[in-house]
Amino acid sequence: MTIFRRYGPLFTDLYEITMAASYWTHRLDAEATFSLFVRNYPPKRNFLVAAGLEDVLNQLEQFRFAEDEIQYLKASGLFPDDFLACLPGIRFSGEVYALPEGTIFFPGEPVLEVTAPLIEAQLLETFLLNTIGFSSLIASKAARCMIAAGGRALIDFSLRRTQGLDAGLHVARSMYLAGFAATSNVLAGKIYGIAVSGTMAHSYVTAFNSELEAFSAYAEQFPDQSVFLIDTFDTLQGARYAAEVGRQMQEKGHALIGVRLDSGDMTALSKKVRKILDDAGLSQVKVFASGGFDEYKIAGALSDGACIDAFGVGTKVGVSADAPYVDIVYKMVQFNDRKVRKLSPGKATLAGQKQVFRRLDPQGRLQEDVIALRDEDIKGATPLLEKVMEGGRCLKPHPSLEAIREKFSRELSILPEDIKSINDHHIYPVHLSGRLQKAQES
Amino acid sequence: MTIFRRYGPLFTDLYEITMAASYWTHRLDAEATFSLFVRNYPPKRNFLVAAGLEDVLNQLEQFRFAEDEIQYLKASGLFPDDFLACLPGIRFSGEVYALPEGTIFFPGEPVLEVTAPLIEAQLLETFLLNTIGFSSLIASKAARCMIAAGGRALIDFSLRRTQGLDAGLHVARSMYLAGFAATSNVLAGKIYGIAVSGTMAHSYVTAFNSELEAFSAYAEQFPDQSVFLIDTFDTLQGARYAAEVGRQMQEKGHALIGVRLDSGDMTALSKKVRKILDDAGLSQVKVFASGGFDEYKIAGALSDGACIDAFGVGTKVGVSADAPYVDIVYKMVQFNDRKVRKLSPGKATLAGQKQVFRRLDPQGRLQEDVIALRDEDIKGATPLLEKVMEGGRCLKPHPSLEAIREKFSRELSILPEDIKSINDHHIYPVHLSGRLQKAQES
Repeated sequence: MTIFRRYGPLFTDLYEITMAASYWTHRLDAEATFSLFVRNYPPKRNFLVAAGLEDVLNQLEQFRFAEDEIQYLKASGLFPDDFLACLPGIRFSGEVYALPEGTIFFPGEPVLEVTAPLIEAQLLETFLLNTIGFSSLIASKAARCMIAAGGRALIDFSLRRTQGLDAGLHVARSMYLAGFAATSNVLAGKIYGIAVSGTMAHSYVTAFNSELEAFSAYAEQFPDQSVFLIDTFDTLQGARYAAEVGRQMQEKGHALIGVRLDSGDMTALSKKVRKILDDAGLSQVKVFASGGFDEYKIAGALSDGACIDAFGVGTKVGVSADAPYVDIVYKMVQFNDRKVRKLSPGKATLAGQKQVFRRLDPQGRLQEDVIALRDEDIKGATPLLEKVMEGGRCLKPHPSLEAIREKFSRELSILPEDIKSINDHHIYPVHLSGRLQKAQES
Repeated sequence: MTIFRRYGPLFTDLYEITMAASYWTHRLDAEATFSLFVRNYPPKRNFLVAAGLEDVLNQLEQFRFAEDEIQYLKASGLFPDDFLACLPGIRFSGEVYALPEGTIFFPGEPVLEVTAPLIEAQLLETFLLNTIGFSSLIASKAARCMIAAGGRALIDFSLRRTQGLDAGLHVARSMYLAGFAATSNVLAGKIYGIAVSGTMAHSYVTAFNSELEAFSAYAEQFPDQSVFLIDTFDTLQGARYAAEVGRQMQEKGHALIGVRLDSGDMTALSKKVRKILDDAGLSQVKVFASGGFDEYKIAGALSDGACIDAFGVGTKVGVSADAPYVDIVYKMVQFNDRKVRKLSPGKATLAGQKQVFRRLDPQGRLQEDVIALRDEDIKGATPLLEKVMEGGRCLKPHPSLEAIREKFSRELSILPEDIKSINDHHIYPVHLSGRLQKAQES
């Protein structure tokens, strides 16, 4: 089960509907193609990760105006009766080409192209921008954390500070897609089948008469699932109590999974805590750390030699704090067989239905992409956009989240090292085909 | 109608439920008080605006575990049967004190305090942090835009780039609460009764054979509701076409509302466009501007003398881009009549049930706040936290969004000028009462 809820066609900017009304009146009902793409690199980003398509396809298949939604529009007094009368019959009947979720992509490349009667294609704009933009933004941020963590486990702790609760669901999914091991978000676990993780907060420790009593009580309840939070009062004393209870657990045939640090100088503390645990014969007990981690702080801690086995990653990644939005747009590129484009300064668009071709180098790594017209064939390069919907119906079942995750993992493994840098900006080569360039001159 | 949807108790971090299970087993069922507060100022912020309470109270009144939710928890294998058996009976039965929505507040001050049996109070943590934190974050950002705009109208255009679709709803509500005139978000209009606004995108202009034809077609459909987007090809030529159609509208007894700029040097363009309109005898036609506006860009344009009458405010405000999260926490401050606190470095909490008192100066402006114990009485100062829920039921109907908006407007009008600065950090005086300080020593 992956559909959470119906959004409905009112989840849109008003102008999509006023434009639709005008198109209706003027019989502008020919087919249009719109292209969804990111205009510029967000700060520090060298690549982006496509995500959000499953939600899009689910919503397109159930796109329709409900009676109360039409009544609301009628009450606004903006719309003529004949237009309101056509709304109950509107479905999405078009065709969609899209990058599969988990595909690495770059600014300028279409992530998705919709071809449909103009009104249908127009009404989707806000929904598509929001859904693909946000999920891709977070998947891209999470991918950077995966690079920084160098194989250590990452767990999504962001729900309390995501921008709303729905955002927390999409964040959990995008982080898992990028390779995170688990999420604290229980509903995301239920909906997406992601492993859930979490043990105790500071309030738990303070609800007992002592830290030692709190750890013992937790161990009794969860003898093989415990991670003790050790910084409520004094981290090193907390580590000693944890070791004491950990040894008792061992004697009873159980095992403490780990301890968690959540404040202070975590690099220095992690080394001291590791020693306390090792000296107690608890070398298998892991050290978890949480509190303000993102790709920069993870990389910093690890380069300082922190003894941290897994990171709880929260707020800064869950809102993509250093780049909290992506400059994603949805532009008409063809209407009624006429290629169209916009010339506003800094906002030019490429006319025509397109395809993105990717060429690998002899070592199998990404070498260059070519944006071309859709009907071109670029020798030795693979087309990335797939036709996923025709006549308003999905052409095949959507891949599972596990399969998407594996796809992304393969893509990341063949990304050149310079493009994987989290601090330095490197531009991956993306060219335009000769025919696409020529099509812009007409 | 203001309730959009049920979130349900699985919208939480797993550790809230594992802690609850352990409390259950150890019969830790005494009453606890948790305090929700912002720990530190977000960058550049001098004040915050309370928002999100209506959503919180609605969800608390309907808090219960559904059968499929309990089945999911059971299948995790983490929880003992007797704990699972107690879940269907759990309701929120506690008491809530809260700052009314629209109240200006400062770091350290409780926004909300919950007193309830420990398990109930604990299970709410993630939901409360997310809901109050995000809505207050955006209301605070929007308030800064209101200050910068100095009375000009602001319109929410953010839906396409908010962090998810639900975020778009909460953003629209928080912006309206702070004084925005309208939103482009149609569903927010329907749910919250906010005025909706929007006319045309670039794709509309390009769907016609010419800009002039596009404007004429729109004017025909919406003879008294038109704002023409004039930057698709050349802004000044677009302004001349708009003036031409605007004059034709006038001759037919209608009126063009405005033109919109969305790219380029908007200060310079706005002056030239204003002149084109004025020279055509269209001085009543307004100039709207959109594209990357936030409080800084609004203030910059106005101080450069831009002839802009209203701003469409989108992405940067809808995600609070310069401060996309707030350091909000929910800490146990009393348990079973024992005051409790956490001592982690940089994360200390104030024990005890509290009240915030506000003192005004002789001119009626905010002078200082005092955080005190709840049962104190601070002479000449007004208590801000109101008891809004008792026994799990709201004590009165929630104020309307219009009333909340008026409340905020009054609060903003008595905020000292230095605290209203959008660029310089000034700290409003917040003190602790003697009794509250003394209570920390026990």
